[in-house]
Amino acid sequence: VKRVLLTGAGGFIGRHSIDELLARGYEVHSVGRHPFQFEVAARVTHHIVDLLIDHEMESLVDRVKPSHLLHLAWYAVPGKFWTAVENLDWVGSSLRLLRAFASAGGRRALLAGSCAEYDWEYEVLNEATTPLRPRTLYGEAKCALRTLAGSAAPSLALSLAWGRIFWLYGPHEASGRLVSDVARAMLRGEPAKCSHGRQQRDFLHVADVASAMVAVLDSDVVGAVNIASGKSCAVRDIVEEMAEIIGRTDLPQFDQASFSPNEPARLVADIVLLKDRVGFRPRFELGAGLANTIDWWRQEISGNAHE
Amino acid sequence: VKRVLLTGAGGFIGRHSIDELLARGYEVHSVGRHPFQFEVAARVTHHIVDLLIDHEMESLVDRVKPSHLLHLAWYAVPGKFWTAVENLDWVGSSLRLLRAFASAGGRRALLAGSCAEYDWEYEVLNEATTPLRPRTLYGEAKCALRTLAGSAAPSLALSLAWGRIFWLYGPHEASGRLVSDVARAMLRGEPAKCSHGRQQRDFLHVADVASAMVAVLDSDVVGAVNIASGKSCAVRDIVEEMAEIIGRTDLPQFDQASFSPNEPARLVADIVLLKDRVGFRPRFELGAGLANTIDWWRQEISGNAHE
Repeated sequence: VKRVLLTGAGGFIGRHSIDELLARGYEVHSVGRHPFQFEVAARVTHHIVDLLIDHEMESLVDRVKPSHLLHLAWYAVPGKFWTAVENLDWVGSSLRLLRAFASAGGRRALLAGSCAEYDWEYEVLNEATTPLRPRTLYGEAKCALRTLAGSAAPSLALSLAWGRIFWLYGPHEASGRLVSDVARAMLRGEPAKCSHGRQQRDFLHVADVASAMVAVLDSDVVGAVNIASGKSCAVRDIVEEMAEIIGRTDLPQFDQASFSPNEPARLVADIVLLKDRVGFRPRFELGAGLANTIDWWRQEISGNAHE
Repeated sequence: VKRVLLTGAGGFIGRHSIDELLARGYEVHSVGRHPFQFEVAARVTHHIVDLLIDHEMESLVDRVKPSHLLHLAWYAVPGKFWTAVENLDWVGSSLRLLRAFASAGGRRALLAGSCAEYDWEYEVLNEATTPLRPRTLYGEAKCALRTLAGSAAPSLALSLAWGRIFWLYGPHEASGRLVSDVARAMLRGEPAKCSHGRQQRDFLHVADVASAMVAVLDSDVVGAVNIASGKSCAVRDIVEEMAEIIGRTDLPQFDQASFSPNEPARLVADIVLLKDRVGFRPRFELGAGLANTIDWWRQEISGNAHE
């Protein structure tokens, strides 16, 4: 039996991962600080545990004895997470979690990394050839965790993979992020204030991010794997596409938000490894993904309006 | 009042640090898993706490409210520490300790790093110019801790220094290390089996290591500082010097222990920072330091013989 411990199960990627795990035949044990408030709760065994409290985490892992680990939990408050000292806590607790997982007989783990580990002087980011040079404490924390986990994996007898997640969007996204803020503003008929929007990034629908992560977990690929679309798109084009879908091309307002000159003009993932070694294909092209996301926000907003 | 929390107080460098701290006017709170078994115990406040148990550590720091932190504790079993997965635990608990220290009002911290962080393709190792490229999990763990602690220090309002400790020797050294093993063998009249001994390393007497660490702590220097003599010496010369002091030049046997061809021929610290910015001067030249160490081992061995 494949028994997976899923951390961060209530988070943006986590909640989208559950169906993917179930579809691949995993017995799913999710862990989070809060009870589940959504429909899949009945199909998983959910454990209410704070992973930052070592002995609680260790006792959980010892009870569940998972064969697989999908570790998504991290400090993720939009805007704050880049520099928060909480990043340090998650390095430590993730290392402890890996140790506990290995001690309890776990053999295959996938941890969530980030494109923020790479040197953003490069445009096309490749797992094997692009240097790592994080600019933020978040990126440094992820980078340090990967280095240490990767080096310790043989001693822990773990097959370890590391998913470098790029930009993403989709249903259930927190506010304070591009697609969620723009979608809600425009659906309410409010102007969507953006930067110049010429910067190009690599965006993937969260359902595809979750699906790609589970595909990596279910493979035997070790080391870092980019989790992305492999295509870059200007932020401006994304906002204009959303305005088209919503039918309010009057609402986008560019050059109304600051954009640091230090931010790179273009970042895109090399996804040969994800495509060819893992065999992953995304479900959503960008246009379809945005349409799907706007549908969800429309229901969310009208649902809230009825409350 | 300068109140220092000293971790690893029962260890090789820790026990030599206490007098240095007291001499500079610190109120010393030491912490370790065991009671002190040596003479200075009465001059410090010793706390029996396992730093790897977060809530015990946090409660201690909150009670003591140290202004200074000298963090030496780590997994240090000779031979094993290079690759042990326990290195991961110490990264996590050191980060938690720093956070707790800052929360309790701590302002100045010195952590123990290692020359194993550097790229050993270089012979002369400088804090600012030599690339970091650890070859071992121990080196990677220290390197990761320094990166994260250094990046988080401004957010934690900490003045943070990092002592990169090179080779050392002296009283109370654990067995399984060069000077301790050779001294004991020769004092017992047994042959001292060594490698070819032509590799050159930078050795400093442990009392000077402790004194240098405390000098750095007591300074306002931030970032990495090499803790070393700045001179390299062939291992063969050290062994022959010890044989001279003991009067048994018949006992050294070279080419009787393996030496990996991957080990670098020469490693020496650049100590401009320690000498000029910190103003540190060592008490022991190598010859005097070895004589002092052999005296100590002689007493230790005859003491044990009387038991």
